[in-house]
Amino acid sequence: MEFSSKLLEKAVQEVAQLPGIGKRTALRLVLYLLKQPAEQTLFLTDALQNMRNNIKFCTSCHTISDFDVCEICNNTSRNHKTICVVEDVRDVMAIENTQQYKGIYHVLGGKISPIDGIGPSQLTITSLVNKVKNDGIEEVIFALSSTMEGDTTNFYIYKQLKDLDVKTSTIARGISVGDELEYADEVTLGRSIVYRIPFENSLKNS
Amino acid sequence: MEFSSKLLEKAVQEVAQLPGIGKRTALRLVLYLLKQPAEQTLFLTDALQNMRNNIKFCTSCHTISDFDVCEICNNTSRNHKTICVVEDVRDVMAIENTQQYKGIYHVLGGKISPIDGIGPSQLTITSLVNKVKNDGIEEVIFALSSTMEGDTTNFYIYKQLKDLDVKTSTIARGISVGDELEYADEVTLGRSIVYRIPFENSLKNS
Repeated sequence: MEFSSKLLEKAVQEVAQLPGIGKRTALRLVLYLLKQPAEQTLFLTDALQNMRNNIKFCTSCHTISDFDVCEICNNTSRNHKTICVVEDVRDVMAIENTQQYKGIYHVLGGKISPIDGIGPSQLTITSLVNKVKNDGIEEVIFALSSTMEGDTTNFYIYKQLKDLDVKTSTIARGISVGDELEYADEVTLGRSIVYRIPFENSLKNS
Repeated sequence: MEFSSKLLEKAVQEVAQLPGIGKRTALRLVLYLLKQPAEQTLFLTDALQNMRNNIKFCTSCHTISDFDVCEICNNTSRNHKTICVVEDVRDVMAIENTQQYKGIYHVLGGKISPIDGIGPSQLTITSLVNKVKNDGIEEVIFALSSTMEGDTTNFYIYKQLKDLDVKTSTIARGISVGDELEYADEVTLGRSIVYRIPFENSLKNS
């Protein structure tokens, strides 16, 4: 691409650094900002700078927070003996939206993925193991992606917890609510038969 | 979406204002910036602010430029008697990439689109008509989108130019190079037969 302006080119280059945003999309976004009042660009850049410079991570569960200890960890009405282990803050938001979980969380900050150069030491695994050892945790629920990286991370942490006095569980895999059986993959379908639940239980929370 | 942080929420809201970026994508982009060094966010916001505050529009052709008169309008080796009328700077870049055009441009800044609240007065049409009247322009080439809005804009400008002493033309519509005939729409195919060109001409610039 030949740019008529270095300022435009620089802006497009920076926006195109974002994942999933190509040069053409970046140009479209930048030209959009040019057509809007200058305040919109100011609000956008201020919000990003403010977020990047002032955001905190909860010292207990490592989720993104405006405070040193997040609102969930600070909430005494929640069950602090049950920890749900997730990859990132998006998973916390997704589980909170279900309103089915009243324990606390532990955010790993990713999953073990040698291809992306992420090993166990870059995740908050030690902090989780220490919490289980010292805080009288009764149950650890793994809620990681059902992918090779998710399973590897799951197993790695499980090995470190299995000799401790704590129950471990993993979220159920099965047919999505609303899905047709014939389109389910066979591994999922197979597991959903092996780990079938009493019919009466399925009537709860529906 | 329930956010664990107001700073995060505000950043996501601002990014989601961009066209084609939903809340989920915005969250993904913002979390990406959080994982990168703080400088990346700084470079991004600086480039956007710098662009928004300092960019200029060429006083002659209205394209985006770092100078009062853009490099194309300032280039004396180009033909200043031929003007190619386009919607925005992306079209200038696309045509410049072909290296087939040696005239100058006129950027309208959009197309007439009552649905989006864009009327002729928001475009640089008066400036174009004045240029044709006063600068001894010999040909105006319309290179607008082949859509209803593009055709409307084209016709609106044509009406204002038709009594002036200037040749008007429009870029050829036809089958794209590399396209299979059977997949072409019938209007395009029909026009490409009506406006066929001598075979020898098609051998040029190929």
